Amino acid sequence: MTNFTYYNPVKIVFGKGMIAELKELIPSDVKVMLIYGGGSIKKNGVYDQVRRALSGHALTEFGGIGPNPRYETCMNAAAQAKAEGVGFLLAVGGGSVLDATKFIAVATVYDAGDPWGIMEGRKPVKAALPLGSVLTLPATGSEMNTFAVISRDSTNEKLAFSSPLIAPRFSVLDPETTYSLPTKQVENGIVDTFVHVMEQYMCAVGSAPLTERQAEAVLQTLIEEAPKVRQHPDDYDVRANLMWCATTALNGSLGCGVEAQDWATHMIGHELTALYGIDHGRTLAMIMPAVHRHQLARKQARLAQCAARVWGLMQGDEEARAAQAIDKMESFFHSVGVPTRLSDYGIDAVEAGHQVASRLAKRGIKIGEFGDLGEKEVREIVALAK
Amino acid sequence: MTNFTYYNPVKIVFGKGMIAELKELIPSDVKVMLIYGGGSIKKNGVYDQVRRALSGHALTEFGGIGPNPRYETCMNAAAQAKAEGVGFLLAVGGGSVLDATKFIAVATVYDAGDPWGIMEGRKPVKAALPLGSVLTLPATGSEMNTFAVISRDSTNEKLAFSSPLIAPRFSVLDPETTYSLPTKQVENGIVDTFVHVMEQYMCAVGSAPLTERQAEAVLQTLIEEAPKVRQHPDDYDVRANLMWCATTALNGSLGCGVEAQDWATHMIGHELTALYGIDHGRTLAMIMPAVHRHQLARKQARLAQCAARVWGLMQGDEEARAAQAIDKMESFFHSVGVPTRLSDYGIDAVEAGHQVASRLAKRGIKIGEFGDLGEKEVREIVALAK
Repeated sequence: MTNFTYYNPVKIVFGKGMIAELKELIPSDVKVMLIYGGGSIKKNGVYDQVRRALSGHALTEFGGIGPNPRYETCMNAAAQAKAEGVGFLLAVGGGSVLDATKFIAVATVYDAGDPWGIMEGRKPVKAALPLGSVLTLPATGSEMNTFAVISRDSTNEKLAFSSPLIAPRFSVLDPETTYSLPTKQVENGIVDTFVHVMEQYMCAVGSAPLTERQAEAVLQTLIEEAPKVRQHPDDYDVRANLMWCATTALNGSLGCGVEAQDWATHMIGHELTALYGIDHGRTLAMIMPAVHRHQLARKQARLAQCAARVWGLMQGDEEARAAQAIDKMESFFHSVGVPTRLSDYGIDAVEAGHQVASRLAKRGIKIGEFGDLGEKEVREIVALAK
Repeated sequence: MTNFTYYNPVKIVFGKGMIAELKELIPSDVKVMLIYGGGSIKKNGVYDQVRRALSGHALTEFGGIGPNPRYETCMNAAAQAKAEGVGFLLAVGGGSVLDATKFIAVATVYDAGDPWGIMEGRKPVKAALPLGSVLTLPATGSEMNTFAVISRDSTNEKLAFSSPLIAPRFSVLDPETTYSLPTKQVENGIVDTFVHVMEQYMCAVGSAPLTERQAEAVLQTLIEEAPKVRQHPDDYDVRANLMWCATTALNGSLGCGVEAQDWATHMIGHELTALYGIDHGRTLAMIMPAVHRHQLARKQARLAQCAARVWGLMQGDEEARAAQAIDKMESFFHSVGVPTRLSDYGIDAVEAGHQVASRLAKRGIKIGEFGDLGEKEVREIVALAK
């Protein structure tokens, strides 16, 4: 087990009816800005619940945060928050709204020029407005961590940043808010969750026995619960299980003592979204099997462990079981309703590989748990997702 | 899954050499009181490491906290802390030192008479000095939670209290500090950890699939790692795994979404320690199998789940598998080196049952996940540990 620091001060308020707790969770002496997306919260009643809970608070709002939230939109929100003297940001939505809110929290109080410098890693985060969230789409884990991903139109970039200052003070998770989600978003969320766990767990180096078993626990629960949500979209427990899996998957606990993580799938996936506009979760479902097949020799032992403990596959030698674990994962993505090949989107994998590889190479980025997958390997990986 | 709030702001600083981080973890503008036990930290080098890390801080110290830390000792420490204007408490030791430090943190700033009223649940905790810890004995989980247990000589009581104000600001967990632990303490710690998990997991009501699997993950890791520590007491990874299991077992994460918990074993165990002076962990090893056997009919389904997932027992009907899970647990305690019967200590179980039952009844306490185990049932349970 490798040395680690774990610190996660996000308060989770989980369960039906918990939106009413907002009244106590947000200080009543500051102006609150509700930040939300395309307006689905106005149709499913979440917006009304939030307004009711905050009827004693001074409120303003900013809607229209889209998927892959844009820098330009965030800067407009920050300008409004500054002009109106907002003291607390409340994200109501999924990971995109949360990530946007995290960037807005920093941008509103930023006084060192253009805050995009933070995304490029050139500038530090020194302050942020306090923020909280009401999560309505389990997927990204942003509700219980210090990360955010923001896209910029003018440069066609999609970049991540992190700071302890953008940890939500609280996140309210009411599984009932997810009943009305479009099927596609539910599917994407399940894949995103699965891949988050895998990127911390499926690494070629080190060993952290308890953390590995905790990761396997999330995978097993997902595999058990995901098929039920199609048949029973209004089953509270199924929704609750999927929601808690998504949060647990990326709250840092699955990284405790882990020597190296392999975020190659997310790195390539972000580029495919930027290039072709494919949903984030769907890019992951194509790329993770390709990454694992490309890195089979290195990851073989952990893949075989996954085969045995998660998929119950005990037959054959280690290499065979490792390969089966990848096939099982790909089948699981299919069973959830998510395609796993670039050809399913009419995209030529070789051409896509060239583009993604050259974009990453231009920024000097190498990926994988060893940080040694460069232009050539990225081309090969994307080509495997043909 | 039932509604829950999860909030754990303790920063964990885990790994070899991490005691040096104390320099940055404790504010340098307050006087720090080191609180420790019988002096083992002076023999194993931990005391020197702590003093070295805090060479730039104003320091005082209070040693001599014993196992089952006493109210009377804590009050002396609180008087000293007050007289010396201490602003931060640093517990260096195991759960007893941590629990004592938590009570001292409250008692030092308490201004409403005798703070024992807090232990009796008659008085609220309104303030506490900030505290941190360097853990040297993995067992109680106190390093990452808001609980403490204190004993009082004059009344022969052992009571627990909880407050968000006594959460450590940080806990440093260096597995190397555990190499020199006496075998008995290592054994007790393993049992304590196992039982903590079980008390959250082995309940007759509700279902929280991910949390149950997370609990099983800790049990499986313990079962795998515990046998190694005898043969390889200086194996860093074994020590690290046991340490991280103990902390995870009682940091609140295994209670997320769990409908009811069954702390009957701890409640009875505390009385046995108060009456006969038996080590805390050793009382648990006797009482938990007895509680499960007494409650077999109610706990049958969860016990059978444990049999299958934790012990790999798939044969026989549910009742048979449930019973086997209890036998397996008892054998595990034996394998760790801990006896599981009152007769092993020369104590008459029937007489002990009468005493424990009447002590709990006098305080009006009923136990178990349904809160319906009273004087009669407690007598029967203790008698089963004959």
